[in-house]
Parts: sequence; C-alpha cells; structure tokens
Amino acid sequence: MYLTQGLHRSLQLNPDWIATTFRGRQRTFRQTGDRVSCLASGLRAVGMEDNDRIGMLALNSDRYMEFMLAVWWGGGVINPVNVRWSVPEIVYSLDDCDTRILFVDDNFLTMTEAICTMAKYRPLLIHVGDGPTPEGMLSFEKLIAESESMKDRYRGGDDIAAIMYTGGTTGQPKGVMQSHLNLWSSAVMALAEHPPLANSIVLHAAPMFHTACMARVIGQLVAGGRHVFIPMFDPLDVLQTIERERVSETLLVPIMLQALIMHPAFAQYDISSFKRLTYGAAPIAESVLQRALVLLPGVEFMHGYGMTETSPVIARSGPENHSAASIANGRFRSAGRPIQGVAVLVVDGEGREVPRGEVGEVIVRGANVMLGYWNRPEETAQALCGGWMHTGDGAYMDADGYLFIVDRIKDMIVTGGENVYCGEVESAVTAHPAVAACAVIGIPSEQWGEAVHAVVVLKPGLEVSGEEVIAHCRQHIAGYKCPKSVDFVTALPISGAGKVLKRDLRAPYWKDHKHGVS
Amino acid sequence: MYLTQGLHRSLQLNPDWIATTFRGRQRTFRQTGDRVSCLASGLRAVGMEDNDRIGMLALNSDRYMEFMLAVWWGGGVINPVNVRWSVPEIVYSLDDCDTRILFVDDNFLTMTEAICTMAKYRPLLIHVGDGPTPEGMLSFEKLIAESESMKDRYRGGDDIAAIMYTGGTTGQPKGVMQSHLNLWSSAVMALAEHPPLANSIVLHAAPMFHTACMARVIGQLVAGGRHVFIPMFDPLDVLQTIERERVSETLLVPIMLQALIMHPAFAQYDISSFKRLTYGAAPIAESVLQRALVLLPGVEFMHGYGMTETSPVIARSGPENHSAASIANGRFRSAGRPIQGVAVLVVDGEGREVPRGEVGEVIVRGANVMLGYWNRPEETAQALCGGWMHTGDGAYMDADGYLFIVDRIKDMIVTGGENVYCGEVESAVTAHPAVAACAVIGIPSEQWGEAVHAVVVLKPGLEVSGEEVIAHCRQHIAGYKCPKSVDFVTALPISGAGKVLKRDLRAPYWKDHKHGVS
Repeated sequence: MYLTQGLHRSLQLNPDWIATTFRGRQRTFRQTGDRVSCLASGLRAVGMEDNDRIGMLALNSDRYMEFMLAVWWGGGVINPVNVRWSVPEIVYSLDDCDTRILFVDDNFLTMTEAICTMAKYRPLLIHVGDGPTPEGMLSFEKLIAESESMKDRYRGGDDIAAIMYTGGTTGQPKGVMQSHLNLWSSAVMALAEHPPLANSIVLHAAPMFHTACMARVIGQLVAGGRHVFIPMFDPLDVLQTIERERVSETLLVPIMLQALIMHPAFAQYDISSFKRLTYGAAPIAESVLQRALVLLPGVEFMHGYGMTETSPVIARSGPENHSAASIANGRFRSAGRPIQGVAVLVVDGEGREVPRGEVGEVIVRGANVMLGYWNRPEETAQALCGGWMHTGDGAYMDADGYLFIVDRIKDMIVTGGENVYCGEVESAVTAHPAVAACAVIGIPSEQWGEAVHAVVVLKPGLEVSGEEVIAHCRQHIAGYKCPKSVDFVTALPISGAGKVLKRDLRAPYWKDHKHGVS
Repeated sequence: MYLTQGLHRSLQLNPDWIATTFRGRQRTFRQTGDRVSCLASGLRAVGMEDNDRIGMLALNSDRYMEFMLAVWWGGGVINPVNVRWSVPEIVYSLDDCDTRILFVDDNFLTMTEAICTMAKYRPLLIHVGDGPTPEGMLSFEKLIAESESMKDRYRGGDDIAAIMYTGGTTGQPKGVMQSHLNLWSSAVMALAEHPPLANSIVLHAAPMFHTACMARVIGQLVAGGRHVFIPMFDPLDVLQTIERERVSETLLVPIMLQALIMHPAFAQYDISSFKRLTYGAAPIAESVLQRALVLLPGVEFMHGYGMTETSPVIARSGPENHSAASIANGRFRSAGRPIQGVAVLVVDGEGREVPRGEVGEVIVRGANVMLGYWNRPEETAQALCGGWMHTGDGAYMDADGYLFIVDRIKDMIVTGGENVYCGEVESAVTAHPAVAACAVIGIPSEQWGEAVHAVVVLKPGLEVSGEEVIAHCRQHIAGYKCPKSVDFVTALPISGAGKVLKRDLRAPYWKDHKHGVS
C-alpha cells in the first residue's frame, strides 16, 4: 500500500469530481493529479531524492495537501512543521532530520531569514502563495507550471512517509517516523470502524501539521471524498464554510467545539449539511457535550483517541456513547474501545495486564505503530519495548472494554504516598458551574512530597473562591485528591495540538527542584 | 498486523459472546480462545515450528476455524486442502510445500492410508471428529485437553499465513503464499467498503479451503461477529440453518444461490434474519438475479471479484448494482469497482493501459497481492512482473470505473483472426429461456483455426436444438462470435471453487493438437 493510492483511485473512478475547495478555488481530482505529478517532478528537478525529508511551514490550504501528495508521489518524506513554534524550535526540527527543502506560505515569510541563518544547512525555500515570490525563493505555482508530469515512485509499505515532531508536553521534540503502512492502515481501520458518509465533504479546520488532521486528510483521500480547507480554526469561518460548501463533517479539538457552539452568530448559519463531528486530543466536557447535543441535533459525535506514535488512532467512541444516556452513565468520558486491527492492553510497571477497572499504562500493538523516533535508537527501544508502543497514558478499561484515560502517567501526582491522576481532579473542578477550564498539577510540598494544585479559568462574569472550589471537589472525590491550593488565571497555555502545556504551569514552582518538570 | 488479532480483540471486548455454532454446539470467544491457545501448544509439542506448513483435509466446521487460529497462534502456516481432489493431487500439494502435519476429518479417513503411502514424508495425522480416533492418529480434542495454553507467537506482517493451492483451471496447481498482511488488509479493505452489519451472524456454507470462504472467515474474525458452519453446501441445510441460527449473511457462488432459490421447500422457512448475500467466483445470471430479487426482498446483494493471488478481493459491486434498474442497464454483470486500497488497471500485451471500454488484461497492485508461488521463482516473477499481479482475466472498464470481466485471457478464442471472449458468448447462450447453464470453448477448425463451440445444459423438461441456440445467439451478438456447434450435456464439470473446468471440456477435442489445452 502507498499513500497516493487513494488519489490514483479517484483519478480512475471520479476524475471530474471536486477534490479540493479553498477560498472559492475548486480543483477536480484530475487537476489535482496533474498538479501533484508536476510538483513531484519539479521537486526531483531541484534535488529531492527518495527518502529525502521535505518541510512545510504553512497554514491549511489545498496546496498543503498537494505538497503531501507530491512529496509522496516523488518518493520523499513530509516533515510538517508545527506552526506555533518559535524559530529555534523550527530549526531544531529541520536540522534534526536533515530537511533541506522547506515550503513556506505568506504567513511565515518573516521567519525565513532567521531560519536560514540558524539552520545547519540553508534550506531551499519554496514559496506557497498567490502573491509575488520573494527573492531567493522558488514559486510553488511556477514549479508546477514549468515541470513535466512524472510517474509515481510508488514508495509504500515500510518506507517512511512522514516525520512528525511531537508536541512539547513531554520534553524535547522527537521525530516520529510514520510509514506508508502506518498511516494507511490507521485510515483504513478507522473507515472499517465508522464507514465514510456518502458524498462526504470534509472540512479541515484543525492544523494540518498535527497528526489528527493529517489522518483526516489521509482518510478522506482513501475514501475518495472532497476536501475543504480554511487556513486555521476560526469559529465564524467554520460556520460560514459549512454553510457555503455544504460540509458534512469535520475534526476539532474540544476547545474548538466549545468556541463554535458558544459563538454568538451560531444560530444564523444553515449548517443542515453537517452530519458528523470527530473530536480528539482531549476528552469533551460534560457541559460542552450537553450543549452540543442540543445545538447539533442529528450530528454524529465521534471521539478518536490516539497519538502521533500510533498514526494516530488507538480507540474510537461512536455516536452510541454521545447521548443523554451516555452522559448519565459516564460513558461519554470514555476514549472508546480499541479499533479493529489495534491491540490495546492496560499494564502495570512490569508489563502485566492489570485487572479491569484498575489504572495502568496503555500499550498498543498494530500496523499503525510508528517505525520509531528519527535517530533516537534508545528512546525508540524504550517506547517500543517488547513490540508494544508504550503510550505513557494512564487509563483503566471497564468490563466492556471501554478505555478511560485518567492522565498522562507523567502527570500523575504522588501526594502523601497516594497516586492522584490529574484528569480525575480536573473533572471534579470543571464540574463547578463557575469554572470554564482547569489544569491540575503537582507542586512541591514539604508535608506531602507533592501537593495537588489547580489552575482555574472562570467563566466570564462569574466568581468563586479557591476555598469554594476545594469544598466543591470534596463532594465528588476523595479528600487526598482534592486541590490543596487554587490559582485563577485568564487563560491556560495551550500547545499547537490543543493540549494544556502543564510543563509551563509547573515550571515556576519547580525551578529550584530537581524533578517534576518533564 | 496478525490474523489472531480479531480473536484477541473479541477476547478483550466480548469474551462471552457466541463465537461459533456447529450442529447445535456453541462456543464463546473465551472458550474458543482457550481451545486455540491449547491446540497451538499441542501442535508445538508434536513438532510444529515457526513457518511450518500444517494441512487440513476436512469439510467445514467450528474446528476448521480453530485449526486456522491455532496454527497462526503457534507460529505456523495453514495449508487448506481442496476436498474435491484425488489422492495424487492431495499428495502433490502436501509434498510441494513439505507439509508434515495433516488434520483429517471423518469424511476423508479412507484416503489417509493412500496419502501416507504416496507422500514423500509420511505426515503426522490428527483426527478431527467426535468419534473414536483411528489407530496411528492423534486426537484433535485430546491434543487440546492435554495441552497447557501458550502465548501467541504473534507472527504477522509479511510472515506467511497460508499456502493455498490454486484450482486446476490453468494447469498444475501452484502454492499461493498469502502473508498475514495480505489476508488482513484484504479483510479490512472489504469492511471499509461495505461495513459489517450490527450483530452479524455469518454462515460459512461454501468450502472453507477456498480463498473466498477463507476470506469471509477472516473478515468476520476481524469484525468480531459470530460464525455458523455447515459441513458443505446443501440448499435445505442452508435454509434450515438460516432459520434456526438467525443467520444474517452468507457467501455463495451463483450456482449455489440458484440451487437455493430453486429449492421446492424454499418458501417453508423463515429466513427473515437474512440481510446480505455475497457471491463470487462467477457472475450471476440475469434469470437467477431476477428470481432472487423477488424471493429475497430487502437482502443486499454483493458481488466480490478476486482470486487466490489477491487474497482475494479486487473489486466489489454492492446492492446499488443489483436492482431492476441494474438489470436493465447491464451493470449487474459488472465485477464492480476496485475496492479501497487496491489498484487495478486494464492493460494490453505491452502493459499499457487500454482506453475505457476496450478489453485487456486486469493487473492488480496492493497490500493484498500474494508474496508469490511457493518454490516457483520464475512463475512468481512472471505473475508479479513490474510489481503488478497479472490476473490472466480479460476485462474492460467502463467510463465510471466498473470492471466487466469478459473471460480468462487463456479462454479467449481466436477464430478467423477475430478474438472472441467466451464469457460474452456464454451470456448470449444462457439468455435462451431453455438453457440452464453453458460453457463455450474453442475447438480445432481447419477453416477458422479455432471454432466457437458451446456445451449446454438444458432446464428440466425443456428442449431446444443446436440450430435454435445458434439462431438465438445471432440476435444478440456478432455472427463470428456465435457458436458453430452445440453439444448438450446433463451437467458441466465444476472445480472445487465452483468454476467450470473448461480444460476438461476442451481435452477430447485437442488431444491430437499441440495447443489449446492449458
């Protein structure tokens, strides 16, 4: 199998269907195929060889998908750059895997000089945009226009397709090597679990550099449906685009879903075409789901649980777990059941499966598990120990096989000899009617070793004291799990993947200690 | 990925669901898992090592599936023996791939002495049955009862899972090596194309040694549903079993479907649970489909086109092509469109794609394409030339990407310099109301090189002359395509896979000629 196969199939079966829509620009599969095979040959002409890494620093667009397909068609490996990163972080990721060609769109042109100065090898820059191409850069459109089409290199199977740098929640970024088989099998298994909608039109609103949106693009390519892009998530843009393009499905992180349904103009748009919402990266809050069920009747909610190292899907939870009954029995909080083709175990520190209901580490085996971390044999061996991907996620599995993610293993707080999983405390805190969001961390404590500490964002116009938050928690969880202290902030620091950067929250407390900041 | 993964998943999610039903005997997934892991360790104890070939000569049963899973669990390779073969053919297939352990059920005990005498190495025999175990054989049940369970060997990916000997329609049988990836990906891609029914109960009535039924078993294992077995196809047994076990789907070849709906007791059974019928190996006759649409209202008809070398699915045609309208526009005759993940081209003798509507050879690429033929590097290189499986099937693809199989390339008749595809002639002949079945072959002709010859089976109680058949054909197809001669027989010789053995029909005509019998 190879990741250009879906494009080949669409070229054969439905060449005149619309493949991409971006800001009013539409292209058929035939046009897309022509552009991809010309861009691939243009890349070969400027030096790309099989297995070379090619970077992309850009917001979402039709050209982002053309970049992916052209690199694969021409035999290369994509390196999608995290657009929230600073120049040193970007340079680190380019240098780490020796990326010598970098696509950059208009939004990031101001960074190119600094990137080129700092990088080990000055990368060849390709300008992705409609305006004039800056001096010293090649033009994306000119590269297509001036190149002959080439035959697909048909790289696939265990060949590397992507190097994805993982977000910074657990230390220095590592380049996750995803093979064609990894990404393709994850897409097909997810389709087998939840078959594609007929005449599906998918909106890509989450950032395409991220593994979840990348997987959505690949899944839609395999299924042969239409792709609609907006540069980045904006609730109004999402609503307008759904209405205008008759979008049937999209993938969001819960924080985006919340912004969407809270938007004052929500009711003004005809989003009757909208049938399916997949969310990932974090569980959904009860209040958000409750509101979403009212505002989006008939929409199927799907939760995908996964990570970059598993390309990405591990488990899915379908519409059957997003009803009023699911809220009552708590199953909406589940990450779902392992999808077909992915083996999942919850194990203790010695790798033994723990009894159902007990918390352990989630480990995963399947065709979707990464080849490894680029140039990091030791960390690869550790992560893939015994042939299983060790996710670092703490979870329990219930009697019916539903996974409930409790926390990152590393986020676990040890207080007075007891293990406290931050996720559980956060659920308790956010259940308070005045709380909009919350992150729980461990902070140093002479008495307890670590003390449970909550960082809280209040809903606009509402107020509550730290004492009241703690008292509220005592009604829901054991005393030792309740926060010992509460801070109020206006916003939590969020990573490019929509996850709370707990490292940043912990840093000030731990700066004089040896552990706790990972 | 590995073929025991579906069993592991069912053991984790639904251990107490019924996994298998055979002649009133039911076993849960937990029981099946226990038996499989014990049988695997029993096989290791009697000498099976990783990659060893293990044969099975038996009719369908729950134990057949346990054999498959246990061999894979223990690290071996299954060699399912064609039950219609003679002793010399069986011995050939066992010797060819060095199969030293052979399971045999009660139906084939009379053959074991001859097999053991003729085989290069006397195989270790394991008796599959409920009665007393014959002397000199091990007992399937005792091997389970007296063995401790073992851990899965987790062989998968490119490891060989099965060696399937192809039917004899094209010369000496060859051992097709199917990997875990081949069989698993074919199953998952078919599920992605046509998702499993909820609470699916599949009846395995077609012979399990055949790649189509084998694939149905694997697909149901991946999906985690229930398996019902009957020893072999019998229309009355099928009807009774559907009623008794509330079967929701089955796979048949068209000749079986015909026998089913023509059965005098058809209307006496409550088959309201029956929702989906997949057929393969041959296209469906218009008259059979018409009758089936009336007698099985609400049943989804699916046509799967494939071959052992593609593990097996290449294309599928769903319910949308099995309606009255599909009969009118002829699309019911299509083999369907290439499934997700399988690349299909129709090419000329030089490997160039032919224009839509023109006949060429079907070539296939994908994760489902076999590793090769066992110990036959030259035939493997030829079949997989350029990375594509050359099917030997003649077909055209219409503008919408639907494949229409015309004939085996080798069945093509060259008469008076014109190419005639037997399938087309057979369609014309069987359209005659008195014709039940027909096979068209080329026979030697001084005048034409080859002459088109039809072998016809009439419907009971109906009569027609050869001249009338030919005159009927002239109304439907070009004169040079019409039979020059017609023979009437009571039945056509059928292979174990339900295909007409044209080689046998051709043999008497060509015995004094050098070509034509392949």
